[in-house]
Parts: sequence; C-alpha cells; structure tokens
Amino acid sequence: MKGLEIGGHSGKGPANRGAAVVDFFLRVIGIIATLGSAIAMGTTNETLPFFTQFIRFRAKYNDLPTFTFFVVANSVVAAYLVLSLGLSIFHIMKSRAQGSRIALIFFDAGMLALLTAGASAAAAIVYLAHKGNTRANWFAICQQFNSFCERISGSLIGSFGGILIFVLLILLSAVTLARR
Amino acid sequence: MKGLEIGGHSGKGPANRGAAVVDFFLRVIGIIATLGSAIAMGTTNETLPFFTQFIRFRAKYNDLPTFTFFVVANSVVAAYLVLSLGLSIFHIMKSRAQGSRIALIFFDAGMLALLTAGASAAAAIVYLAHKGNTRANWFAICQQFNSFCERISGSLIGSFGGILIFVLLILLSAVTLARR
Repeated sequence: MKGLEIGGHSGKGPANRGAAVVDFFLRVIGIIATLGSAIAMGTTNETLPFFTQFIRFRAKYNDLPTFTFFVVANSVVAAYLVLSLGLSIFHIMKSRAQGSRIALIFFDAGMLALLTAGASAAAAIVYLAHKGNTRANWFAICQQFNSFCERISGSLIGSFGGILIFVLLILLSAVTLARR
Repeated sequence: MKGLEIGGHSGKGPANRGAAVVDFFLRVIGIIATLGSAIAMGTTNETLPFFTQFIRFRAKYNDLPTFTFFVVANSVVAAYLVLSLGLSIFHIMKSRAQGSRIALIFFDAGMLALLTAGASAAAAIVYLAHKGNTRANWFAICQQFNSFCERISGSLIGSFGGILIFVLLILLSAVTLARR
C-alpha cells in the first residue's frame, strides 16, 4: 500500500479503482455464499421411512424457528449485497466518492451483525442437534435424522464465508477512505 | 457534519478530536456492557429446593456450552475494548493518525462479529429454554428454573447493547477517516 502511495495524488485514482473492482467481486462471492446457504437450509426436509406412535417422523428446517431466522437473515443479506453492487459499480467509475463509501461501511457493519446473528444462532442449534444436552434433557436428534443434520451443518459454511467477506469489505473500504 | 467541514483544513483537527472523545466514551460504555453481561451470565446458578429420581435439580450457566462461549466472547471483547482505550487516547492527542484508525475499524469489525456470535447463539438457546421445541422433543426448562431463566435472559441485554456500540464505533471511525 505504501508503494502505491508514492505516485502521489495522481496515482490514487487507479489504485482506488482496483480496490473498487475487488470490492465488486467480493460482493458477488458474498451473494453466492449467502444465497447458497439460504437455499440449502430452506430446502432441508427429511422424512424417515418408518413411523411409530407419532404419525410420522419428519424433519423440516422450519420446525426450528432459529433456522427460519437463518434463512431470512441470509436472504436479506444476499438482497442487500445485490443492491450494493450498484454502489460498487459507481465506486469503480467515480473513485473519489466519499459519502457513499461511509454509508457502505455503516450498512456493511449492520449486515455483518445480522449475518453473524443468523449463522451463530443456527450453529448453536446445530450443535445441540448433534450433541444434545443431558442436563437439560434435550436429546441429540441427529441420531435419527442423519441427512437432515448433514444438510443443516453444511448450509452454515456459506454463511460463515459471508461473515469473512464482510470483514474484508469493511477493511477494504476503510483503506480506500484513508488513502484518498 | 457538513457544518463542521466549512472550517476547511484547519478546522478538522478539533472536530476529529471531538469524535475521538466520543469514541473513548463509547468504548467505556461498551466495557461496562460486555463485562456486565459476562459477569451476570458467569454467576448464574440455581438449585431447586426439591429433588426426585435425579440427585438434585441444579442449573448452572456452564451446563450449556453455548453459555460458556457467551461468557468467553464477552470477556474477550471487554478485554479488547480496554486495550483499545489506549489507541483511543492516542487518537485524542494525535487527531491526524490514519493507519491506527484503519487497524481499529478492522479489529472493531472482527470483535463485532465475535460479540454478535456469542450473543445470538446464547439468545437461540435462551429462546429454546423458554419455549422448548415440540418437534425435536426439547422441553422448556424455564418452567422449572425460573430465576435461572430470568438471569440468562437479562444477561443478553448488555451484549446486544455492545453490538450497537460497535456499529456506532465503526461509523464514527469511517466518518473521521473520510473527513481528514
């Protein structure tokens, strides 16, 4: 970064444009990750081939409200990222824009919080589904619902990848703001 | 903000100093909030006055690993905030510092993610303790452990207050970086 600054005032435009292009691609990856998570979780559904005193053993993501929140949070973040692509393209064209970058850092931080909330709440429940808790008499439902559990565990990956991308996006915006 | 910028280059120092002072006090409030949450959760312990086929009904925060993570996350964030007070004082004295502000935004974003993860994972379990889940056969333990449940619910407040403070801190740093 120091090396890029040697060019002085005139050299900062192209470097900022480069940062804006990286910003754009990070957002595209973020859309894929969060949308993938939302779809993977939202389509989770397992019906066991046997039934006993209950009518039928069936596990769906919305049996647990936390997973519904997970799907909503990931969808909201994906929608936000799609909208923010417009601002990102604007930053590629106008590399000296300032107010819009501040707004972007602020909203990115808010979305980081929302995505982390959804992902870690779901992770807490997934952990419980795998391990159960003997003190609270909560049983590990993964012993019955294998494919359900694999699916809900896997769908967390995209969400946590999205968290990483948001931290990088905030860092990138801060560096760009400071280098103006 | 626009009004503050009218003073031009010479007027930005004092305004940045004011922002650094606000930054300092937000961090102090954040320390109180997260430390309060950690202590409130870490001292939660309830023993019921009766006992049946189990030896004794006793609920402690570390019966549930998620609550242990909550205490650790809040303690780590509180410790980080104490350390960051040094940088905040440095920014009050040297209002033109730049690299340290970028570092602060980056670490603030990371800590925002950690605090949100701890708070929302705990919230997911607290919700389960209150409502239970009939599909997974998880019972609402709050019917027995009243004071335990009130305590773990209350200790979430400080943590969510801390999340709000971090979003404000990131916004404040971004504005200060842009106004240099």
